[in-house]
Parts: sequence; structure tokens; C-alpha cells
Amino acid sequence: MSEPRLLIRDLAQLATPAAGDAPLRGASLGAVEVIEDAYVLCAGEEIEAVGRMRDLGPLDGNVVELDGRGRCAIPGLVDCHTHPAFGGDRVEEFSLRAGGASYEELHAAGGGIRSTVRATRAAGEDGLRTAVERHRSWMLRQGTTTFEGKSGYGLDRDTELASLRAVRDAGGVPTWLGAHAVPPEFEGDADAYLDFALAEVLPEAAEIAEAADVFLERGAFDAAQARRYLEACRAAGLALRLHGDQFTEQGAIPLAIELGARSVDHLEATGEDGVRALAASDVVGVVLPASALFLGRPMPPARTLVDAGAAIALATDFNPGSSFCESLPICCSLAATQLKLSPAEALSACTVNAAHVLGRADSLGRLAPGYRADVVLLDAPDWRYLAYHLGGRIVDEVVLAGASELR
Amino acid sequence: MSEPRLLIRDLAQLATPAAGDAPLRGASLGAVEVIEDAYVLCAGEEIEAVGRMRDLGPLDGNVVELDGRGRCAIPGLVDCHTHPAFGGDRVEEFSLRAGGASYEELHAAGGGIRSTVRATRAAGEDGLRTAVERHRSWMLRQGTTTFEGKSGYGLDRDTELASLRAVRDAGGVPTWLGAHAVPPEFEGDADAYLDFALAEVLPEAAEIAEAADVFLERGAFDAAQARRYLEACRAAGLALRLHGDQFTEQGAIPLAIELGARSVDHLEATGEDGVRALAASDVVGVVLPASALFLGRPMPPARTLVDAGAAIALATDFNPGSSFCESLPICCSLAATQLKLSPAEALSACTVNAAHVLGRADSLGRLAPGYRADVVLLDAPDWRYLAYHLGGRIVDEVVLAGASELR
Repeated sequence: MSEPRLLIRDLAQLATPAAGDAPLRGASLGAVEVIEDAYVLCAGEEIEAVGRMRDLGPLDGNVVELDGRGRCAIPGLVDCHTHPAFGGDRVEEFSLRAGGASYEELHAAGGGIRSTVRATRAAGEDGLRTAVERHRSWMLRQGTTTFEGKSGYGLDRDTELASLRAVRDAGGVPTWLGAHAVPPEFEGDADAYLDFALAEVLPEAAEIAEAADVFLERGAFDAAQARRYLEACRAAGLALRLHGDQFTEQGAIPLAIELGARSVDHLEATGEDGVRALAASDVVGVVLPASALFLGRPMPPARTLVDAGAAIALATDFNPGSSFCESLPICCSLAATQLKLSPAEALSACTVNAAHVLGRADSLGRLAPGYRADVVLLDAPDWRYLAYHLGGRIVDEVVLAGASELR
Repeated sequence: MSEPRLLIRDLAQLATPAAGDAPLRGASLGAVEVIEDAYVLCAGEEIEAVGRMRDLGPLDGNVVELDGRGRCAIPGLVDCHTHPAFGGDRVEEFSLRAGGASYEELHAAGGGIRSTVRATRAAGEDGLRTAVERHRSWMLRQGTTTFEGKSGYGLDRDTELASLRAVRDAGGVPTWLGAHAVPPEFEGDADAYLDFALAEVLPEAAEIAEAADVFLERGAFDAAQARRYLEACRAAGLALRLHGDQFTEQGAIPLAIELGARSVDHLEATGEDGVRALAASDVVGVVLPASALFLGRPMPPARTLVDAGAAIALATDFNPGSSFCESLPICCSLAATQLKLSPAEALSACTVNAAHVLGRADSLGRLAPGYRADVVLLDAPDWRYLAYHLGGRIVDEVVLAGASELR
């Protein structure tokens, strides 16, 4: 007997972004197709068909049915920028900052990325695996069926590799963020740290990770250092990402374009020239509104980027210091209220375009035949509640590769 | 045999705001008491004792135990400003606004409060009861154990009274917002509408509601109309609230002080004189950061108010048009990141101070003997994750009047 197929039936609505061989941009970003009174038919791990209930013919064989009444289906969400491999938390620093503490006070209280590096190194491989699994389960409850996960809180050989393995083994897409910060043992000598990282960590990191990432910013790595790091990583077979223009413009966009990076992420500080350059390129701009909210920073110019023709993606930046938020639905609300993206643009940005950033747009990010059967069922009469219902328990059930994972 | 007592044991932490005969202000707002390795003992609907596990003696009689390991307890949250009695939604308007639509386009699309008035009148009493019950269940999942609920989308006699009954019968605290807007049948003549409302609706509304509320703003009701409405409501035995300083200052704070109102709510537009006046008064300032976020408006000057000595409360403003957000935990995150309140100040503002606004501070808003046994169990190692973990499923379980309602 053949394996049963899964029929999600009588959905109030089904919403799926447009198809595209390249990341969606311009009007196509908001061109979400909506089917009322819809079904999704899954066979094994893939979608076999979607359509209107009235067009659904008789189904032969063993079919398991899932009642979609009063609910809407969207593709499983793709979070293309997270930092899930860390020990400890930063709640003390968060609380001090909320009460108006200065940077000096935060530093005196042991805050900042270095506190997370200490806790991450202390967690050990088992501790990191447990942490990443927990964070993955949090993401799944919010509808994220695919997550990218960066290393970058180890900054030594063993902890960086353990972080990448933990992400990979939790089903995530690992990115080696070897150039996140200069660790204390290389204080004041970023180049010496990069010598170490590229010689001692990259060879094995390149076996586990799919991409490399660098934090190009004052106080972290400059453009020359970022170039050296990324060129070495590219030579080792990794795709390239950049954290750029978060606080200041340090040349991230031109460098990303020159090196053929998949994305440049943050962009809160991007000015007109950067917008124009990104719009004329194939690099995806990843916007992270929860991070801007968390830090009380200006929002990235997402509307301007889209209107200029740039391809953008939307991600959480989940991490303990500047975005303790794993919820893409909240990011969709922030996209609508703070970035002036329509719910349709926000949906495309955290599904199909995010899948492009991860090199998986052939199988993820849409509800269409041949795509992986990752389906989020929303407790809502209209799929746009994804952005409209801020903070509600909008994600009602998640189907992951054809199996109901969560209700 | 006596009814079993409920022992919530081995809590990682218990956090409870300071006691106060009056709303907490100044330093006392942030004076949250934290007990590590704690218990809460409930007898019937009340808390009998709280303390450290090591100080817990043997318990006689029938005791049901709830395992608090890895979790933190805070008081049930009190939402003192919501609009849960409505039909329909405003997702179309939200989506158009997100995409940059002008007010004219929104109006042409049938948006605005009038669309909700139409849908609310059409819902009928059963429809309103269903809606309020649904919204109450959403709030409970986010840790809200007491909610205030306003009428104000009916604006005719039957729908206003049905709204108040629906709130009351769902266990909420009803507020008659008879002066929310001028309904279409009185277009352009707010005074004639108030003549009607005070003559035809107030007498029965005063039998159901505990307070009256008015929207004092350009395009709604002016200060003279608000005074007339509130004085009549006060004479009918209702406590007084005001929506004030949301877009412009129209004298809400002086009027609230003069009439002895319990609160003035919104305050996004409050200037220095208003801050000073409110700080010198007994009126509570209710801040609604989700509403400011939803509308992309400036945040209310909560930090300035607290530093000036004003008593503030924190609420969701849950409603379909300007804050489709029932989550007080999200409001706590917004309070910390946007209003610069510490997690402790945010907690006091949506528990004990909100209970003061509702006239229930003798029994709600604290974890202490004699208070109602409303307890929220957070999935967190530190209670401040309430504000820190933005959008996570932080509320793990809710105990309502001594009974576990939700896990």
C-alpha cells in the first residue's frame, strides 16, 4: 500500500507568493496569489496540488484529511537571519538599557557580546545543541519551517564548529559568522584574529556551513578585513553574506556586489547611494525590523528599497543581545506598521525571497506543486492577519515536509 | 472534607509589585519584589501565602501541587483599556495603510470607525457575545486575567447596551464609551447625539457599566461636550475615564483632574504642562504603546511622566482599527524598548496600577495573601523575559481565581 496523502481541505484562504527564478522585486514582491475556499494536497514530503475546493476531483488511495475551516494557509516561513547558537541570555543588560542605563553601566554590569561569548564557550557542545533545539522549537511554534543559523558567539575553533554542527543537526542552514567580533584573546588585533580563524577554523567550517558572514562595522571589522575574510571563504566554497550598514555605512553594499554575495543584512543606516546600488544589483537586502525595535534604532529604508527595485528579504535576527524575538509574524507586523510594506510584500520577503538568500528557492517558500510541503495554518479568516494580528497566537498549526508537527 | 488547596512549588522566581493604597509612582513603580526558588499557596479563589520554598512548612489537608520548575510566577495581568465588543475587522484598511494608502483611499475603501460601527450593529447581541468571548480567550492566553472592555462601536441604544452586557457576562469590567464618535445618523451634530445618548442610553448603561469614557479629540468631542457627558455620567454613579492627547492636546488632562477621573488614556501628544499637571494629580496616565506602533505615531512620554512623579498604567488598547493586539507581554516589550520603562516598571503598570484604574487594587495585581489567586506562569528562567522575550510564547500557564485555566 502506498503512503497516505495529506489533504488540507476547506481552507478559508490560501496565499502564496509569485514564482520567480530570481528574488522577487518591484511589483512582483506584492503579487501574492490568494485562493478562497482552497485545498492543499501533499504527497510524501512534497505538495502535489493546490486549488479551489470546487475543482478538487475524487482522490484515489489512502488520504488523510486535515480540516482547514476557519483557517488560512500560507507557506512555511523561512527565517534567513538568526543567531540561535548561544549560551546564557542578556536579560540583565536589556533591563538596564530599558531603564536608561548608559553604555558604561552596561559594560560594568558585564553586558555586551563578550558576555555571550563567555557563556557560549562555557555551554559546551551538548549545551549548544540543547539551546539550538530549544530555539528551533520556538521558531516552529511561530511558523518558521526553515531557519538559517549563524555561529559567531564562540570565536574559537571548537565552539565555532560545535555551533555549526548544532545548527545543521537541528535541521537549520548553517552560516559561519567567524567574523562577528574580535574575541578577547585577540583584543585590538582583528587581523591576527582573522589569520587564526581563516587558518584554523575555515577548513572545517567550510565542510559544515553553506555560507560565511561578517560584521562590517566600526568596532568590528573594516572593509579590507571583511574582503579578506570573504574572499578566503568564497575560495573555500562558501556563499557570502554581510552584516552591513547597521550603525554606519562602511562600504558593505559595494563590497557585497563586487564579491557576488547573496545578501547584505541590516541596512538601518543605508543612504541614497546604497539604495541605488543595491537596487541595480542581484544582492538581496535583508531587513531586520525587530532588531531596530529592540535597540530603539531607526528602521531600515525597506519601502525606499522596494520602490527603487531592490530585492529584499525579512528576517528576525533572533539573538540574545539585540533581538530576542524568533517570531516572523511579529516581523510582518513591524514590516506593515514600521517599514510600510504591505502584508503581501512582507509575506514574499520572509518566504520565497528568504529562500533565495538560502539557495533553496526551488523547493521552499511557495505553496505550489513540487515544493516541500511546509504549510502554516493561521487562526484567522484572512491570511493578512499574519501582519494585522500583532502578537496574537496567529500560528495555529504547522505542517513540516508533509507531517503535522504542531498544533 | 475541605476543598483542596493549590501549591505552585519550586518556581525559579516569583515577582510581585509593591503594595500601595494609591497607584504606585516614582521609585515605587519599579520596586518589584523578587523571590528565588519560590512557592504560591492558593486556598479557594485567594492566595493564602507566598514565600521561599525553604520556608514552606508541612501542609495539612488536601493539597494539589503544580510544578513550577523552570518557570516564573507573576500576578495575572490586568488590561485596563480594551475595545473588545465589535463586529468585523479592519484588515483591508490595515493592508492599504501599510502599503502607503492615503486617508482618502482608506475612506473610499469603506474604512475607519464607521465601518466597525456598521459591522457591530449588524452583529446583533449573540454576535457580540461570541466576539467578546473570543477576544477574552485570546487575552487569557497572553496572561490577562482581568480586562476592562468598552462599548462604543454601537452608538445606538440597543448595541451599546448589548456591548456592555457582553463584556460583563464574559467576566470583564464594562465601560460605557458612549462618546466614542458621532454616529452617521447624527452626522455633524455631536450635541444632538449627546442629548440622545444621555437621555436614552445612560440610565440603563449606568446599571451595567462601572465607568464612562469619552474620546476628546478634534473630529470627535470637544472639551465642553466631554464635560457635559462626563458630568452626567458621574451624576449617574459612574467612574470617569478619558481618551485624551492622542493626536492633539484638547484639554483632557485639566478636565480629568477637575472632574476627578480615574484615568486619562493615550497621551502621545502630551506636552510639558500636561506632564506637570498629571504628575501633581491623582489621575492615572494610561499609556498604549501598541496603538502608537500600529499607527506609526510618536510614543507617549512615559519615561518623562514617571520621572515627573505621575502614576501610569500600561494597556493594549485592543481594537480592530488602531491596535489589533491583545498581548500585554508585547506591550511590556514595547514599554522597555520604546518607552524606556524597566521591566519592573512595566509589570507594575499592567498589574497593580491597572487594578487601581479599575477600582480593584484591593484584590488584584499582586501575589500576596488575600489577593485573588490569579497567577501567570512564564516559560522563562527570569521573570523579566516578560519584556525581554518579544513575541515568544512566554505565557506558559494561567491560574485564574485558583484554578488552572490554560496550559
